[in-house]
Amino acid sequence: MLENFPSHIDYLSPEDNIDAYQHDIRGTQGKAVFVMRPKTTAEVSACVAWCQQQNVPFIPQSANTGLTCASIPDASGTQAVLSLEKVTSTFDLSLPNRSVTVSAGMRLSELNARLLEHDLFMPIELGSDPMIGGMVATNTGGARLLRYGDMRRQVLGLTVVLPDSQGSVVQLGKGLRKDNTGTDWKQFFIGATKQPGVITEVTLNLEPLPQQQAGALLVPSSNDSVLELLRFFESRLDAMLSAYEFMSRNAMQHVFNHIPAVKHPFGTEAVPEMALLLEVSRTNAPASWETALDDVLEQVLHEAWELPSEPLQDVLLGPLEPLWQLRHSIPAGYKAAGKPITFDVSFKRDVALAFRSAMLKELPPKFPAVEICDFGHIGDGGLHFNLVCHDKALVASPEFTEFELAVRDWVMAQAVERFDGSYSAEHGVGVRNRRYYERYTAPVSGRFGLHYNSDPVRSADQT
Amino acid sequence: MLENFPSHIDYLSPEDNIDAYQHDIRGTQGKAVFVMRPKTTAEVSACVAWCQQQNVPFIPQSANTGLTCASIPDASGTQAVLSLEKVTSTFDLSLPNRSVTVSAGMRLSELNARLLEHDLFMPIELGSDPMIGGMVATNTGGARLLRYGDMRRQVLGLTVVLPDSQGSVVQLGKGLRKDNTGTDWKQFFIGATKQPGVITEVTLNLEPLPQQQAGALLVPSSNDSVLELLRFFESRLDAMLSAYEFMSRNAMQHVFNHIPAVKHPFGTEAVPEMALLLEVSRTNAPASWETALDDVLEQVLHEAWELPSEPLQDVLLGPLEPLWQLRHSIPAGYKAAGKPITFDVSFKRDVALAFRSAMLKELPPKFPAVEICDFGHIGDGGLHFNLVCHDKALVASPEFTEFELAVRDWVMAQAVERFDGSYSAEHGVGVRNRRYYERYTAPVSGRFGLHYNSDPVRSADQT
Repeated sequence: MLENFPSHIDYLSPEDNIDAYQHDIRGTQGKAVFVMRPKTTAEVSACVAWCQQQNVPFIPQSANTGLTCASIPDASGTQAVLSLEKVTSTFDLSLPNRSVTVSAGMRLSELNARLLEHDLFMPIELGSDPMIGGMVATNTGGARLLRYGDMRRQVLGLTVVLPDSQGSVVQLGKGLRKDNTGTDWKQFFIGATKQPGVITEVTLNLEPLPQQQAGALLVPSSNDSVLELLRFFESRLDAMLSAYEFMSRNAMQHVFNHIPAVKHPFGTEAVPEMALLLEVSRTNAPASWETALDDVLEQVLHEAWELPSEPLQDVLLGPLEPLWQLRHSIPAGYKAAGKPITFDVSFKRDVALAFRSAMLKELPPKFPAVEICDFGHIGDGGLHFNLVCHDKALVASPEFTEFELAVRDWVMAQAVERFDGSYSAEHGVGVRNRRYYERYTAPVSGRFGLHYNSDPVRSADQT
Repeated sequence: MLENFPSHIDYLSPEDNIDAYQHDIRGTQGKAVFVMRPKTTAEVSACVAWCQQQNVPFIPQSANTGLTCASIPDASGTQAVLSLEKVTSTFDLSLPNRSVTVSAGMRLSELNARLLEHDLFMPIELGSDPMIGGMVATNTGGARLLRYGDMRRQVLGLTVVLPDSQGSVVQLGKGLRKDNTGTDWKQFFIGATKQPGVITEVTLNLEPLPQQQAGALLVPSSNDSVLELLRFFESRLDAMLSAYEFMSRNAMQHVFNHIPAVKHPFGTEAVPEMALLLEVSRTNAPASWETALDDVLEQVLHEAWELPSEPLQDVLLGPLEPLWQLRHSIPAGYKAAGKPITFDVSFKRDVALAFRSAMLKELPPKFPAVEICDFGHIGDGGLHFNLVCHDKALVASPEFTEFELAVRDWVMAQAVERFDGSYSAEHGVGVRNRRYYERYTAPVSGRFGLHYNSDPVRSADQT
């Protein structure tokens, strides 16, 4: 089959070590017929055209950090992987336009490292280190969405290879911030996950890099206090409010139990029911005549403490880094504690907490084998409503698959049908949540359709 | 023809006074077969279904404040107007979610008046007062885009009536800030102008209302200083920078000549080559321990004044309102001076100034009958590159149409082909700029297509 593959394009066959391309970060295993490793948009185009002509289904793969099995081949052994990892040569920075055009295969960490000397950054905060193309395809959000928005907000232009028999290359957007000349087709490729095309270059908005940061760990008095405090901070801190992260007691407790590097910020006291990581940032360097950011935060927290409704039970001021370390260690903590069953749901901001309250009451009697260890971006309504199953016998048994499905179906029905939320806030859509895509998204999406003038049917099959 | 129009829906026939629905704000005159005035989404649906069944083309019309003739019927007398002005009943505010769901026919001014008591606002700043549905259809930007973004950034959900024979109603988006479950179809209806559907309800993100503002009029030393200063202010003022508006000497001079209410801020001095309106805002109320915003601005301007490159030639501190009055009076000024030939172009931020320099040199010798009176949102690359023709004989002659077209074609070719800009930054696409849509957008858009499962061909004809 590979004998007529374009000879100038790098590829790996199953005889090479291609394991890393076949399994995802959570261990799901697929099997690739081969792995294409093009270096340029033109080479990606040649790969796509070849696949279309040979009728070989392909899976675009960036850093393979996704959590929904969207970027690995299935187990059939018939799908090719189209890796974007070598598409890395473009880095076209415009300081006056505050934008950069980069190849899809550039890592977020490398992009931000290269922007550091210019006091600029691409303002998406994540625990993982994806590639830019994959971030566009899943419309990544992260922990600073309430300040900077998602990838959709950053994308000013895309180069895309369409899945037609020529591997047509289209340029969508010119790096402009205002451009309204009809349907904005680049929006199609942002967050579509099951891409209707392969993104090879991206022009991104950049933001001035914060020069000052401060933070605190807050213990809210009640569920209702979480949003009351958020609204107070939004009115008081304005755009300085850069993160507002929720952590449940169970989520924190597993970190303290299993991740020795993370210090217990509550000292000898018991871990509270819930805690909030508050981060404030300012891009301007401190000047002698200004109130220092630490002092601003302290004053605002003092005002919050004095609010008549007494929404604050405790405040721990201190350096930011250990707080983020605690927040980012949560997945490692619950993984060490048992078998996770994870969710990436989102709601209107107040509904997120109502959903949580209902689940705390209703889930344990229904599924006593699991414990709720939730956390998330409560400032924008996102909740990683993760569960841990401590019943080792159940986990090891053949019944676990069915048990997990029953839990997932029930939680998703509560989240989507009862609380009008989303079954995928920021992880996108892939094999792992296709069931819920078909149940909840497909009935609406089926009313629309996208076709290319060339090969509409083939394109539809491909993607 | 109207005998079988649904009897419960209000309409006006040509015997009624329907003139306001037939001509646009710039005086282009069309002729409507009749005007539908539905009150609810269900009534809009019935109107659309009736039009499709009767084969009557219709033009959705919001506040009719558009500048591209997209919302008025043509002169044929065969098109119906679908007015959204009575679709106004929904106002569903969520303080905790910081969002509101409103009917498409609500005016921007009314929305913000109703939000005032909650210290929230919909942060689009405009000289006109459009309705929300129209603002979504054109993806309105305005003067504070560099701080708050465009309508696309605010839209969290849409209710749309599709142009099929049932007038199908679809709900796109649930008011969530994070929701990535496949193609985000609501993006299709934002900024598409020639709408692939009629927007009847919109869920919008809201922002905390600024409690402090301050401003200054700056005279930059040169073309290059405009962006040098912008970049300095962005790094120093961060999200407090809420507007950065450019005004040319001619644009200002016509205001001083023709609009007596606007005071000459430069006193006895000559009007400078160019000036910049700088606005800073802070949503938090001033607290005793904070540096007042006026002082922040003064200090930052002092730092800018001291920059080694000496980018500032003059600074006029003072109240903001007269500055905005000057800025918003520019259209009235040049209209009083002669016959305008207007452009709404945009570029990468540095390219906007390069375009302007080239035009100042090349346009006058080519078209001596016009004068350049440009101004605009230079902070995001937008330029209202407006011209005024002072030759009254030419304006009154039958040759003027051809002259105007020659000017427009030449300027658009420079903007789009040579300087890689957009021929419509924020006014959208309508009859007035269809020529440039067909020349520059259609070749790319033609590669894509949107169809509905029901009546794809009829839909394409309709919209």
